[in-house]
Amino acid sequence: MGGDRGPAAVVAGLSLSAAHYPDIGFILHGPHSELAPLVARRRNLAGRCDVRHAERVVTMHDKPSHVMRNGEGTSMWAAIEAVRNAEAQAAVSCGNTGALMAVSMLRLRKLEGVKRPAIACLWPSRNPAGFNIMLDVGADIRADACDLMQYALMGASYARNGLGLERPRIGLLNVGTEQHKGRPELKEANELIAERAGTGGFDYLGFVEGGDIPSLEVDVIVTDGFTGNVALKTGEGTAGLIAELLRGAFKATPLSRIAAVLALSSLKRLNRKIDPRRVNGGVFLGLNGTVIKSHGSADATGVAAAVGLAAKLARGGFVQRLAARVASAGLPGQDAATGENKNSDGS
Amino acid sequence: MGGDRGPAAVVAGLSLSAAHYPDIGFILHGPHSELAPLVARRRNLAGRCDVRHAERVVTMHDKPSHVMRNGEGTSMWAAIEAVRNAEAQAAVSCGNTGALMAVSMLRLRKLEGVKRPAIACLWPSRNPAGFNIMLDVGADIRADACDLMQYALMGASYARNGLGLERPRIGLLNVGTEQHKGRPELKEANELIAERAGTGGFDYLGFVEGGDIPSLEVDVIVTDGFTGNVALKTGEGTAGLIAELLRGAFKATPLSRIAAVLALSSLKRLNRKIDPRRVNGGVFLGLNGTVIKSHGSADATGVAAAVGLAAKLARGGFVQRLAARVASAGLPGQDAATGENKNSDGS
Repeated sequence: MGGDRGPAAVVAGLSLSAAHYPDIGFILHGPHSELAPLVARRRNLAGRCDVRHAERVVTMHDKPSHVMRNGEGTSMWAAIEAVRNAEAQAAVSCGNTGALMAVSMLRLRKLEGVKRPAIACLWPSRNPAGFNIMLDVGADIRADACDLMQYALMGASYARNGLGLERPRIGLLNVGTEQHKGRPELKEANELIAERAGTGGFDYLGFVEGGDIPSLEVDVIVTDGFTGNVALKTGEGTAGLIAELLRGAFKATPLSRIAAVLALSSLKRLNRKIDPRRVNGGVFLGLNGTVIKSHGSADATGVAAAVGLAAKLARGGFVQRLAARVASAGLPGQDAATGENKNSDGS
Repeated sequence: MGGDRGPAAVVAGLSLSAAHYPDIGFILHGPHSELAPLVARRRNLAGRCDVRHAERVVTMHDKPSHVMRNGEGTSMWAAIEAVRNAEAQAAVSCGNTGALMAVSMLRLRKLEGVKRPAIACLWPSRNPAGFNIMLDVGADIRADACDLMQYALMGASYARNGLGLERPRIGLLNVGTEQHKGRPELKEANELIAERAGTGGFDYLGFVEGGDIPSLEVDVIVTDGFTGNVALKTGEGTAGLIAELLRGAFKATPLSRIAAVLALSSLKRLNRKIDPRRVNGGVFLGLNGTVIKSHGSADATGVAAAVGLAAKLARGGFVQRLAARVASAGLPGQDAATGENKNSDGS
């Protein structure tokens, strides 16, 4: 209900998802009088979409702390509650990110051993999968060395289960690749992550820079939520500016207008690769349940991408695998290797 | 001497600058035996380029602290010394950023009242000037509220003198535009900057996000050096990825190859707008002297852009104007307006 385009875009997205995934069903939360007609108009949702009435809606301007105290009865709260009750295997929301994280933490609780949950995003990259993963992109503006180490573990687990990478390569975002660079917590995290690379089932590359985020050489970029959020929005803003200039360039002269027509199919392919609507879906990591934050401005294609990601992770039993990984890695100072079967389940 | 392409690219850049600016001269620092033949080959540098022998060179891997202690006799040190002695009105270097800042701070000293100098970069934007300014992009990985307030003043002064904007619009980079978002020092800086907008000769917009960096609505983006450095490199990395994908798209089919030829002049115009070589030049703000950090990988065009920026700022008496602004704004708690002539010199 809280997305920029309202519930019509969400229902259109569910309809797209229903066509792609014949074996999934939906529970849709919000005012019944508004949602039922939208669902009724989509034939392929008949019998697959349970509309649950929720009177109230969390807006983009509500403070997370306020929603935590007063959010019961909102559609967002009900969606998380359905995951808590195991009625739903995953929740997807286009709403207020801070509120969604706050309600998710309150109702689903953090995984045993996780100090700070994180939001992981997909980033268009030169890798064969077409994406790298970056986390945290905004769950929390702070992160100490231990949090960053856990982000590395959780990011590796997500890369294995979400992108199918057997041995993800992890980098820690910094202002330079040299050991002496960066804030004290980064130097400490650098050591903590390196210690866990063997038992954690990932390769650790050390420090990477902003220019390396779309690199072929790395799969998962670890950073604090403040830096990650700025980097994500900066990347989107840069891509937006270039797309705008490019459209201008193609309209500039009669020759370039002809060129645009000739290059159309190639440019469309390029657009598909970097279209934020198809890369949509920030995954909340470190909770007892899968929650996916879709862009507030997501349209039907964007919502369908987020739902598809939710379906993929729910099917693989992602949360259980991630929980096992975090537990086996232990806290700083403990021996991470104890009792872990290194070749267990690929989680 | 310490740039990735060595002194040949620098001398080629000086030659381009000499053609553009008939009234400027150069002092070139480094091993005479290496530099003299390069200069001799450029006819338009005859009589305009003084080669000063410096045996030693600062490399990209030298630690700033080491260079501060042992840097005398290097070409970088000599270049800064020439500014200190007022032989040069500005210094330009393609070398080690950290070392350049350390030597600049040691020899030029900070401006009265400035706690932390900053590096300001130009960012391709939708603004008529074609650029926005962002600072700090890497002088220091820390910045408290008072530093951020001074960055706002220095950035405004640079925008007036470097981009010719009479009343620059300043934004403070955060993870959201709402007042309650962000780290404590950002909330404090938000108030400090707002208090000085009237007397500082700028408009203050409050918080902006990563996506706003190239915006038409803002001229100067203020942030700490860690975040700014990551954002800068993320923006460059994103632009690089898109350029690569675009080249691929134009080679994909016979039709798209024809399209590339037809759109060539329009695409070249676009490329000029976002080409990092033409946007080259990070300005050190807050020192008793103008120092410009060129990209390490700058070629002749990039070096010429940095030299052109140096010439522009040196001519306008930029450092004196900036010093007056910082002094008049005072420290937090002082009354910033006292004694300032609001319509004085446009600095």
